[in-house]
Amino acid sequence: MIDFEFCVPTKIYFGKEKENEIGKILSSYDAHKVLIIIGQGSVKKSGLLTKVITNLEEEKIIYRVIEGVRANPTLEFVNEANKIAKEFHPDYLLAIGGGSVIDTAKSMAASYYYDGDPFDFNSHKAKPNKTLPIGVILTISAAGSEMSTSCVIQNDAKNEKKGFNSPLIRPVFAIENPELTYTVSPYQTACGIVDIMMHTIERYFQPSGNNEPADRFAEGLLKSVIKAGQKVMRNPSDYEARSVLMLMSSLSHNGLTNIGKPFMMPVHQLEHALSGLYPSIAHGAGLAVLWPAWAKYYLEYDVDKFDMFAKNVWDSNIPNKLDNGRQGIKMLEEFFRYIGMPSRLMEFNVGRIDIDRLVELFTDKGTRVVAHQVKPMDGEVAREIFKSCL
Amino acid sequence: MIDFEFCVPTKIYFGKEKENEIGKILSSYDAHKVLIIIGQGSVKKSGLLTKVITNLEEEKIIYRVIEGVRANPTLEFVNEANKIAKEFHPDYLLAIGGGSVIDTAKSMAASYYYDGDPFDFNSHKAKPNKTLPIGVILTISAAGSEMSTSCVIQNDAKNEKKGFNSPLIRPVFAIENPELTYTVSPYQTACGIVDIMMHTIERYFQPSGNNEPADRFAEGLLKSVIKAGQKVMRNPSDYEARSVLMLMSSLSHNGLTNIGKPFMMPVHQLEHALSGLYPSIAHGAGLAVLWPAWAKYYLEYDVDKFDMFAKNVWDSNIPNKLDNGRQGIKMLEEFFRYIGMPSRLMEFNVGRIDIDRLVELFTDKGTRVVAHQVKPMDGEVAREIFKSCL
Repeated sequence: MIDFEFCVPTKIYFGKEKENEIGKILSSYDAHKVLIIIGQGSVKKSGLLTKVITNLEEEKIIYRVIEGVRANPTLEFVNEANKIAKEFHPDYLLAIGGGSVIDTAKSMAASYYYDGDPFDFNSHKAKPNKTLPIGVILTISAAGSEMSTSCVIQNDAKNEKKGFNSPLIRPVFAIENPELTYTVSPYQTACGIVDIMMHTIERYFQPSGNNEPADRFAEGLLKSVIKAGQKVMRNPSDYEARSVLMLMSSLSHNGLTNIGKPFMMPVHQLEHALSGLYPSIAHGAGLAVLWPAWAKYYLEYDVDKFDMFAKNVWDSNIPNKLDNGRQGIKMLEEFFRYIGMPSRLMEFNVGRIDIDRLVELFTDKGTRVVAHQVKPMDGEVAREIFKSCL
Repeated sequence: MIDFEFCVPTKIYFGKEKENEIGKILSSYDAHKVLIIIGQGSVKKSGLLTKVITNLEEEKIIYRVIEGVRANPTLEFVNEANKIAKEFHPDYLLAIGGGSVIDTAKSMAASYYYDGDPFDFNSHKAKPNKTLPIGVILTISAAGSEMSTSCVIQNDAKNEKKGFNSPLIRPVFAIENPELTYTVSPYQTACGIVDIMMHTIERYFQPSGNNEPADRFAEGLLKSVIKAGQKVMRNPSDYEARSVLMLMSSLSHNGLTNIGKPFMMPVHQLEHALSGLYPSIAHGAGLAVLWPAWAKYYLEYDVDKFDMFAKNVWDSNIPNKLDNGRQGIKMLEEFFRYIGMPSRLMEFNVGRIDIDRLVELFTDKGTRVVAHQVKPMDGEVAREIFKSCL
């Protein structure tokens, strides 16, 4: 086990109709002036926003709403939203939505007390040292941003999608009512399932030495999500399955499944290049195509771990470890297909895939290599992987 | 999944020599006057206390040491320590030790701002509403008190041992250096392993409905602890195994393994009666005798869960579920024997076991029945269980 610090103070309020407590909850955190951030309008259509506003008014909380965060949220939007924030002077941000809305709130929280370009945090040119507190009402089970320290923003002008981490942007609380996700489309639900699984699978495939518990937690989480994923595809209003997805979204990305282990996410880096260049590609769908390609490339460099993955997650027990590892990847691919995910880049409706540009983005113009215990992931490796899933 | 709130803000500082950062860590929490609570002197003999004091002095932190907490910590000790606290006026409590020392600190933290009897909290006559903050340097992997909301104190005058829970007594931080546990005796190490496992097993056997992830986390934790327990019995200085025990001590009792599930600990209640009446019995050793007896009694009322336990924790796959459940209990008993735990009450050197008195203590003079989904645990059930492991 490596030396580490672990602290996850986000408070989860989980259960039916918990969103109706938002006013009281915000008051308990001494919030008086709340800037609400929402996406493309679904929380208005569903009536959730009206409920929240009524609730805030009952508590005499002053509020303002910023609307229009898109998937793969943009720096441009953050800049516009920041102007409103600096005029409104909120003491709390309330993100109602999924990862894109929460990450927008995180970027705003960090840049509220910073005069430079908000993307400086994502480019690792600056670190936040003071932030606005964030609360969340979660409406999509996917990114885990509600309990994580990470914030990924898209710079459309440069086709760059980059993340940064800081404990100061971790939400203070998250309200999780699984019923709010009943209306998420099958495709978006599937993208979320992939994202939840990938946060854990990427951690799982980091070299772990003898780190038993982190790997066992990861396997348990994956088995639960696979089962819930199958159920929710048959019945989108399965409360228990939606509950598992919602809670595992939070626990998959909060550090639990890599506790005492190093933490890297190479396939997320590949995907950030992909949806950075083609913003219409949903993050989860991109991961669903890229991970199996990454796994097939790295299988031979980490046979034991792939064998363990096949055994403990997919109950596959082929005696030859390489074959068993391959079978585990195959079973994951089949699961992804079952929930309606693509398996080739060509399935995305984005024209010709520009592999040179993808490699350039992945390697930050040839300056970056992602570490690996045996085979570091440089531009050539990335090129092979992109090519193999065209 | 039931409705719940989940928030575990305790910060873990994990790794070799982390105790040498205690001064800086306390300063970062704005501690200036620290009351240190220790046990029967082992942290003095090992030199740990001197190290800590040097470290505090470097940070110009004023301190005082209270020494002498025993296993099954007493109200009498808390009362004496409170006198010193009210004279010293600390702004922080630092517990150096295991569950007994931490629980003493918790009782002190709660009673510092309370004028009544500290046992009022344990008797549920009062709830703390303001407490002193607590830091921990953990030296025994067992109780999980370093990350839990619970505090168990013994009232020797009444032979009562009772616990209470409050988020206000959860330690703010815990320093966990597995090397500090190398010198814990094999017997105490084994008692700790039982306690860690029981915190999860008791949660596991609460009715869980479809709560997949909590059960999968529980199984993963148990498998890791069993493996580490076997290793540490062969080599007490196995860093990896000691690491697993230390970290799982914290995660076993912080609410993770019952997330989204109801939470009760019937066998802990039996054990509190036992070591309440016979304080020389170590908590873990008491649990090692009582849980298998409880399990054999309840096996037929929850066959599916016992079968799942045998399958997923012990890799036992006897087709008949009842037989398989029985085999799971047997394998746990064998593991307990392997690590040196007793299997009968008669093995404790406490003279004749007074079952009437134990039942009286367990039922709080006939006023309490512990709930169960099928067969509530009243005095008669408790009597049967106590008798069956004489």
